[in-house]
Amino acid sequence: MQIGYLLFPDLTQLDLTGPLQVLSRLPGATSHIVAKRAEPVRSDCGLSLLPTTTFEACPELDLIIVPGGLGVADAIRDPSTVAFVRRCAAKARYVTSICTGAFLLGAAGLLRGKRATTHWAYHGLLPLVGAIPVGARVVRDGPVITGAGVTAGIDFALSVAAEVSNDDIARGIQLSIEYDPAPPYDAGSPGRAGAVLTRRLESFYESRLSSFREALAVVQGA
Amino acid sequence: MQIGYLLFPDLTQLDLTGPLQVLSRLPGATSHIVAKRAEPVRSDCGLSLLPTTTFEACPELDLIIVPGGLGVADAIRDPSTVAFVRRCAAKARYVTSICTGAFLLGAAGLLRGKRATTHWAYHGLLPLVGAIPVGARVVRDGPVITGAGVTAGIDFALSVAAEVSNDDIARGIQLSIEYDPAPPYDAGSPGRAGAVLTRRLESFYESRLSSFREALAVVQGA
Repeated sequence: MQIGYLLFPDLTQLDLTGPLQVLSRLPGATSHIVAKRAEPVRSDCGLSLLPTTTFEACPELDLIIVPGGLGVADAIRDPSTVAFVRRCAAKARYVTSICTGAFLLGAAGLLRGKRATTHWAYHGLLPLVGAIPVGARVVRDGPVITGAGVTAGIDFALSVAAEVSNDDIARGIQLSIEYDPAPPYDAGSPGRAGAVLTRRLESFYESRLSSFREALAVVQGA
Repeated sequence: MQIGYLLFPDLTQLDLTGPLQVLSRLPGATSHIVAKRAEPVRSDCGLSLLPTTTFEACPELDLIIVPGGLGVADAIRDPSTVAFVRRCAAKARYVTSICTGAFLLGAAGLLRGKRATTHWAYHGLLPLVGAIPVGARVVRDGPVITGAGVTAGIDFALSVAAEVSNDDIARGIQLSIEYDPAPPYDAGSPGRAGAVLTRRLESFYESRLSSFREALAVVQGA
């Protein structure tokens, strides 16, 4: 099982590192961290990650995982990144994204008519790539599996682990990473966080939504 | 607020990247990823992480976070790593660990008489460093805060975010990373996973426990 993780500048690192921690424990799985060039790539939080391979050198993948983040807007505008996603997807058994990585799948034309999820603040943009928004943490539509915002990548990856192996292996991985979550607050979704906090974050995300809209318009106009 | 994350070979990457994703969103916080040398450091899962500073160049820290992993046994035996942890801890407001990072704190003499937690499979070793094991996901004893296995780092970090800022900011971060966990299985702790699965993992961890015991014996004999 060849699993590829797309690495691009200004990704949200946990979108990639969460699923990687889970799926690297899958027996028989090989992880490829794939970037345009064989150089460290800066993430959103001061940490740079090192690719293990490049778009050119990457072997055929069974599963591709596209993380999200602020950098998705630039990645969408980069023809070689979009072409790489499209090329992998054509051969892969599973084509997946976490958070706003969904829009990179979308820019590659892979979400047309598909039920999909993304970070809660960006759900309204899913129809721009022809996707049908579903308000769930993990959504599967045939070979396309999408996860909601950031931490949803862990739930996503455990589901994928079960899908490609079995329940017992997925449960073993869950126990090994002691995934028995106990958030100190109940504020992880708009419905739970309440209107005031949600509105505060929505106004923070406004400019990001605009940059995503612009990037998608450029690609779709092309 | 200067926050330092210790980076050493064969760490469990999510122990570091989970808290980093949360705490890098704290207003006024600066993250330092600190390694012995200014070179990429390989993690447990094929991904290498780049430090932002070194033991020598690292500024004084308000909060130090020590992740865990297989590599803790070697880190314990490395006098410069243990000395760095001890030196930071002497000045920091908070001295913290995730997962088996607790044993690196312990090797630096920082857990003597302290209530602490670690990855469930390693709880029995806590008395070897003079700590009082507490079966909780996040444990605070004065300036020392310890988190349980791997994914507990996210719960830990939200608690720390609240401690150093306020509830409102911590809740905002939780909503921004959509931390509304929905594990597909209920197997994240020995009590939930059941005896058969727990025993399977315990036998997997046996050799690791031995290597931790040996490393601690060497340090404490010195």
